Amino acid sequence: MKIDTLLSPQELPALAHRELSGTACVVFDILRATSTFVTALHHGAEAIIPVSEIAEAVALRQQQSDVLLAGERDGVRIRAAQSGGVDFDFGNSPREFTPDKVRGKTIVSTTTNGTRALRACGDAKMILAGSFLNLSATAKFLTKLQPEEVLLVCAGTGEGVALEDVLAAGALAELLADEQSDSTQVARQSFLRSKLDLAAAIASSTNGRRLFGIPELRADVAFCSQRDVFNLIALMDAGGSLRRM
Amino acid sequence: MKIDTLLSPQELPALAHRELSGTACVVFDILRATSTFVTALHHGAEAIIPVSEIAEAVALRQQQSDVLLAGERDGVRIRAAQSGGVDFDFGNSPREFTPDKVRGKTIVSTTTNGTRALRACGDAKMILAGSFLNLSATAKFLTKLQPEEVLLVCAGTGEGVALEDVLAAGALAELLADEQSDSTQVARQSFLRSKLDLAAAIASSTNGRRLFGIPELRADVAFCSQRDVFNLIALMDAGGSLRRM
Repeated sequence: MKIDTLLSPQELPALAHRELSGTACVVFDILRATSTFVTALHHGAEAIIPVSEIAEAVALRQQQSDVLLAGERDGVRIRAAQSGGVDFDFGNSPREFTPDKVRGKTIVSTTTNGTRALRACGDAKMILAGSFLNLSATAKFLTKLQPEEVLLVCAGTGEGVALEDVLAAGALAELLADEQSDSTQVARQSFLRSKLDLAAAIASSTNGRRLFGIPELRADVAFCSQRDVFNLIALMDAGGSLRRM
Repeated sequence: MKIDTLLSPQELPALAHRELSGTACVVFDILRATSTFVTALHHGAEAIIPVSEIAEAVALRQQQSDVLLAGERDGVRIRAAQSGGVDFDFGNSPREFTPDKVRGKTIVSTTTNGTRALRACGDAKMILAGSFLNLSATAKFLTKLQPEEVLLVCAGTGEGVALEDVLAAGALAELLADEQSDSTQVARQSFLRSKLDLAAAIASSTNGRRLFGIPELRADVAFCSQRDVFNLIALMDAGGSLRRM
């Protein structure tokens, strides 16, 4: 199988014109959306619905009163004043999504870049949320599945490349020693250069430094840098919800 | 100074909305446009005018009969049948641009991605053509100049990332140990992982393998992988010509 990589979120719009019917896409938004999704699914959440805007999350709660809402702005859980009167149940820290809170629940989560990247893969054969937390499980699944192509999608931050997403794409590429595109080689080499102290490399990223500056979120960086602590695949269903597989 | 990097040509259109008045841009199209420009300038060419299309090159020759034309399609020098009756003087192999042929001449060179990247930097404080051949000279110049920002622009191939351009950007970033963006860190790590056998890494790229498959162009890959053989800066003037500095 061929392994290609989108390093920058500015490469997402062109996906609309790309044939993806034989492609398994893996989206990485390491700090912190996809790491959080994988954690919540591991701890028993029924489904995660990623949305871009606070208003979309609130609208889904109005349709279905038992969904939980997750999201933050500037590191702080969304409060009633920001969402037209609805207090969110979670921020976006993966450490909040404990088994007692998420088991059996559907969680609507606001994340701009993560949602944009997952939606951009629209017509793909398969869309997965990837993270360091379930990296080997994802690699094993793809190795068994053998799609024509694997597309590693780095969600990035705003319009920019996020180092930690590229490192995760490179780490997965290293486990899938197949025919690799130039961008995949870039990601893989970047990972191989960093792997002896991956946590430090992730902490040196723009997002890593930003989270480090918020005392209650500091531990998220180390949490999201853990490798292979969860043995599951996070797969998007036809309705746009991520579910455990 | 801040060092940022555009890894993919799909990031070029957004440059139109970016403030570049304090930015020195360095464009890399290692196999082979910018390597060729630097070589021709080193060997005494007066100026290089990069253009995208064969027709633009032919029009410039009609205006100014003493310019020389350079360009290839599928590895072969452009022939009269492809250009409305004008035989081109050179292909795009840097080894063709010898002192006896280029001294004092203005050369119009067709290159799709190289031209697109140079033009996308339109309003920058300064635009340079970079290559491994003049890497340290370029780094020294930027270190003296100390612009607010250096933007390393990987021209790529078609719509895709070209490994060799990212390696060159990373090699320059390694010489400019300043405040580096996430994408710059990616390029730098990729270079550092490859530097012990840089020529092999460049040869493993999509363009490297393509050129290796054309017997008369095979030697171009090793030529363009040479580091610091020319001590010059290739600077774009206000009229869109590259000149030696």
